[in-house]
Amino acid sequence: MKVAVLGATGFTGEKLVDILISHPKVEVTYLASRTPKPVLYSELFPGFSGKTKLKCEPLDIKKASSVSDMLFLSLPHTVSMEFVPYLLGKKKKIVDLSADYRLKDPKVYKKYYHKDHKDKINLKKAVYGLAELYEADIAKADLVANAGCYPTSVILGLYPLVKDNLIDGPVFVDSKSSITGAGRKAVIDYHYSNISDNIWAYKPFVHQHTPEILAVLGESTKKSLELSFTPHVVGVGAGIYSTIHFSLTKKVSYSDLKSTYKKYYKNSPFVRIKDTLPKLKEVTGSNFCDIGFAVSEDGKKAIVVSSIDNLIKGAAGSAVQNMNIMAGWDQTLGLL
Amino acid sequence: MKVAVLGATGFTGEKLVDILISHPKVEVTYLASRTPKPVLYSELFPGFSGKTKLKCEPLDIKKASSVSDMLFLSLPHTVSMEFVPYLLGKKKKIVDLSADYRLKDPKVYKKYYHKDHKDKINLKKAVYGLAELYEADIAKADLVANAGCYPTSVILGLYPLVKDNLIDGPVFVDSKSSITGAGRKAVIDYHYSNISDNIWAYKPFVHQHTPEILAVLGESTKKSLELSFTPHVVGVGAGIYSTIHFSLTKKVSYSDLKSTYKKYYKNSPFVRIKDTLPKLKEVTGSNFCDIGFAVSEDGKKAIVVSSIDNLIKGAAGSAVQNMNIMAGWDQTLGLL
Amino acid sequence: MKVAVLGATGFTGEKLVDILISHPKVEVTYLASRTPKPVLYSELFPGFSGKTKLKCEPLDIKKASSVSDMLFLSLPHTVSMEFVPYLLGKKKKIVDLSADYRLKDPKVYKKYYHKDHKDKINLKKAVYGLAELYEADIAKADLVANAGCYPTSVILGLYPLVKDNLIDGPVFVDSKSSITGAGRKAVIDYHYSNISDNIWAYKPFVHQHTPEILAVLGESTKKSLELSFTPHVVGVGAGIYSTIHFSLTKKVSYSDLKSTYKKYYKNSPFVRIKDTLPKLKEVTGSNFCDIGFAVSEDGKKAIVVSSIDNLIKGAAGSAVQNMNIMAGWDQTLGLL
Amino acid sequence: MKVAVLGATGFTGEKLVDILISHPKVEVTYLASRTPKPVLYSELFPGFSGKTKLKCEPLDIKKASSVSDMLFLSLPHTVSMEFVPYLLGKKKKIVDLSADYRLKDPKVYKKYYHKDHKDKINLKKAVYGLAELYEADIAKADLVANAGCYPTSVILGLYPLVKDNLIDGPVFVDSKSSITGAGRKAVIDYHYSNISDNIWAYKPFVHQHTPEILAVLGESTKKSLELSFTPHVVGVGAGIYSTIHFSLTKKVSYSDLKSTYKKYYKNSPFVRIKDTLPKLKEVTGSNFCDIGFAVSEDGKKAIVVSSIDNLIKGAAGSAVQNMNIMAGWDQTLGLL
Repeated sequence: MKVAVLGATGFTGEKLVDILISHPKVEVTYLASRTPKPVLYSELFPGFSGKTKLKCEPLDIKKASSVSDMLFLSLPHTVSMEFVPYLLGKKKKIVDLSADYRLKDPKVYKKYYHKDHKDKINLKKAVYGLAELYEADIAKADLVANAGCYPTSVILGLYPLVKDNLIDGPVFVDSKSSITGAGRKAVIDYHYSNISDNIWAYKPFVHQHTPEILAVLGESTKKSLELSFTPHVVGVGAGIYSTIHFSLTKKVSYSDLKSTYKKYYKNSPFVRIKDTLPKLKEVTGSNFCDIGFAVSEDGKKAIVVSSIDNLIKGAAGSAVQNMNIMAGWDQTLGLL
Repeated sequence: MKVAVLGATGFTGEKLVDILISHPKVEVTYLASRTPKPVLYSELFPGFSGKTKLKCEPLDIKKASSVSDMLFLSLPHTVSMEFVPYLLGKKKKIVDLSADYRLKDPKVYKKYYHKDHKDKINLKKAVYGLAELYEADIAKADLVANAGCYPTSVILGLYPLVKDNLIDGPVFVDSKSSITGAGRKAVIDYHYSNISDNIWAYKPFVHQHTPEILAVLGESTKKSLELSFTPHVVGVGAGIYSTIHFSLTKKVSYSDLKSTYKKYYKNSPFVRIKDTLPKLKEVTGSNFCDIGFAVSEDGKKAIVVSSIDNLIKGAAGSAVQNMNIMAGWDQTLGLL
Repeated sequence: MKVAVLGATGFTGEKLVDILISHPKVEVTYLASRTPKPVLYSELFPGFSGKTKLKCEPLDIKKASSVSDMLFLSLPHTVSMEFVPYLLGKKKKIVDLSADYRLKDPKVYKKYYHKDHKDKINLKKAVYGLAELYEADIAKADLVANAGCYPTSVILGLYPLVKDNLIDGPVFVDSKSSITGAGRKAVIDYHYSNISDNIWAYKPFVHQHTPEILAVLGESTKKSLELSFTPHVVGVGAGIYSTIHFSLTKKVSYSDLKSTYKKYYKNSPFVRIKDTLPKLKEVTGSNFCDIGFAVSEDGKKAIVVSSIDNLIKGAAGSAVQNMNIMAGWDQTLGLL
Repeated sequence: MKVAVLGATGFTGEKLVDILISHPKVEVTYLASRTPKPVLYSELFPGFSGKTKLKCEPLDIKKASSVSDMLFLSLPHTVSMEFVPYLLGKKKKIVDLSADYRLKDPKVYKKYYHKDHKDKINLKKAVYGLAELYEADIAKADLVANAGCYPTSVILGLYPLVKDNLIDGPVFVDSKSSITGAGRKAVIDYHYSNISDNIWAYKPFVHQHTPEILAVLGESTKKSLELSFTPHVVGVGAGIYSTIHFSLTKKVSYSDLKSTYKKYYKNSPFVRIKDTLPKLKEVTGSNFCDIGFAVSEDGKKAIVVSSIDNLIKGAAGSAVQNMNIMAGWDQTLGLL
């Protein structure tokens, strides 16, 4: 299968290229970015020298379409929706890694991304790209809206709890992320000296991933949820570590809780239900999501930890997992 | 005033020496550690060369007592209580940085520190060493039980909330700490490769600082509190960053919340009530505790962030602040 | 081909297992370490959960031999030579990652490793495992002494210079390494707080890799060399970055120097001759060695930089590259 | 004494403010930067909240001059020389932290800083601000050109060697620096993900500090020197670690070498001659320069290591040391 990556020079695009050039069933035929003229990808990213001779070109959507069967759109939010209608018209398959097709409600989209949605028809058809919840739908989809990084971590941690009505009252999610989640940007806040050895909370209650988490959990569980989501930037090279704090609706033992997760994820090769609390470095560099638990002595409160590599399971790896499913391949292909 | 540091080679002891040798009103007369024979402190810690010619000696409690007026006990838990009775008998003033005199209830002490308390008489007399809550008592005390690192961060964040009955239901505290809080130990878990770029939760619900937080808040506010405390290790060089998640008992605005904190800490020179969410690096290297807030759009939930340097405000700096108060000096002396 | 890893729990052993379980032509049949009883490898290293169900066992050399064709000895120095004679007697192929078979002169071995060499017969037969210099010999060898980490970086940087008589007077090699090169050891010097943000030189002139570099370059080039080698520990997660400083024997232009390197490494898929000075992160996670240069304005002095991942090209990756050659496969198999 | 800092928001300016507000003999009366309007310094740098109520203003040179006796110019290269003539005309004392008055030869200045020197008269009068070499001149100076960061480290390491004719042939200096030396700039190369865990050499032979090192050593020793200087960026939070490699003109023992350094620096309170090779973290946060050595077994080659905090001894601390000398105070005032 011929694949293209539009937006190949962001952190996510780079990771996509890295995974795709080693994938046993695909040929990468096209890379595009904001480069003014075609340039060797290995000139932009010297680490790719000796691994690929691909060039990165200024984005030409007709060319992209003509040389590929499947396209990964690793473009800024509000840009993907410019190209999707054309590509679907050409019968292409798309995994969109932007937020453009994740929120079904255009009003919510506008509130959080500050722009009118331009492609409401395809917005309805798009399937949310989190394989652990929507594998069957993804298998039939032409347009997959790849799950956001925080939502991947948080939804996988919350889904069994919500589904089984285990959360009493609000759930408080404290997520810690590498700064790479904010994209490759030359801003002073992301200077080494501001990130290294630093931690800070940002956008509590109002982060744009809050409605995504709520909408997906609502649709997939048909249950409601009261969520307080607080993301943090932490001076680590990669990963998201989400600690989910809540009261239990009933006394639950540690082994009950674990069984619940094992039940829901028994067919999910990338979710690892742990015997101990996860450590972030055990997932970085991989497509795994590690989940661990603890229950208070009185059995009334619990925490669930969900840990991923933000650029892999939280973006590029998940996108390839979705592609594998769309193509009818084993979902782990090229990812283990 | 002549001061001694017993346990001068741990992370906390080292920081104490660093602060005390520059303090304008004290003379450091004695340093002790597990060294087999007297050795220049600057040989153990070459960074002190050119700053002090003090020696570090094997602990001799009689000598320590005879050459000092005030002693800092930066000893392992269960060791301090071996020496305190003798020193108080000699009319010395003590700031104990271990946990030995923090928990008033010997049964709770035994549950969390796995040893019978040997000095129940002085345990009753000891004053909890958190200047922002107990300044008047500290001023009169001979024995101060310096507040723990997590408790300092968490109690300062929670006190106004509990006092003003603002927390509805349980409070979920998600604390992130540098590994230096675990002490200078040669264990594989603290190897550079296991800490750098890593995050992990540990001891949720059962960490030994949980009863300390609860007891101090209970005693100081005469209110009860349902606490879920989850500490984390994060790959940062210094600091504790506590994010406190909770539901509000009533609709509260951001400015109301801020006023509450300003009210309680108006005489606390080391507590900074922030206009934005704190960043950890803004406190590392200092004795400040930064506190910031956010309230959800519906005014029903909030977060409070409390950020300190774990070895300074969370240990050595707070100990010097307590000494200043015990000596009748300005509490900021040597700390700004 | 069936392969065993003896010493599977050090940093190098772990990396070997990681590469070998994904290698398309081998089956890992045996892992051994100092574990007291058999244990799932993924219990020791949770990151391997979902990737392998192999167990790690107490080392039983007969069993190791009986279930494998090729063995990787990732054992401490002076331990490998206990097992090699037996394994060679069983007609096994061996890649030894310790230093035991690298130094042809047993006296030099004793000087640097403080033990008499016990297996001088096989010491003579062992081939030095640096594929870029000894590919033909490795292809025929039963016992390969995998090149040391610093020597890999330094020899690849120096070989063309020595071969073409370009160095006038002594060469000064300033190497910077991740602490992982020192092995997974619970010592206070490797504590996070001592490594992070730190740099130090150690063992200048007397590091045990000095004679290895000199002997290999002497044998391979038939030229002599005056070497001053100064290794450093630097607070980075992975890699060795060697800066080679020297005077030129004659005026040499930048492009001459580059051509020299291109000539010697034209058949070396893992050596990348760069147009710019390498950055360490461009090789970490890979088996590449990046080499870059600069010549002074007067053409009399130059630097050469040679950069590798110390655990991959400097150890486990190079070992697999050697195995590929010994097995008659493409040397890049499983490594790109 | 009233002091002003022009350029108070760079890394160096921030460190200057930090040192000066705690200095026992000065009052900071004016801070300026590129801010569009006056703003609390603690708003720009929240870590200063509770420590100073100073404002930072748009630079007004007349005001700066009218409210201060001593001015620190922490301005970009080529900007300082716009203001110096005016300030000297007003009989002010100046410590200039830019490179504008370091190079006595305007042609060399132009070659390395790409601009004609506009103030050749004062260039001649300026004293090079490295107290260990020029204390007497600094004491009498009105304009001190504060030594560059790399030059401070390298000159202090080389001076005794050059003075005593110990270097045979070229000296190869391999310096490793924190990225903070490049200034607070929003460029992608200084993004956390490009600095953390990274090392790279840059500008070998042609770095602008090469002529500064050569000129100062030439003038101060009246000896010539052949220098190859290669700076590196290393992913550490602070510091410069210079390893100086060379051949000896004669057999020299370790203790001879050490005595040489002790002789030259016996009156230098901030130079510490070490018994072991320095570790970078032993100087970070301080104004010390640590120097250590090793001599090869044959006594023909040696290395000298010189380690400083690049923003303190390499910039702001050294500037305050110079001010102390200019004011006739103890040079360590406010710096220990």
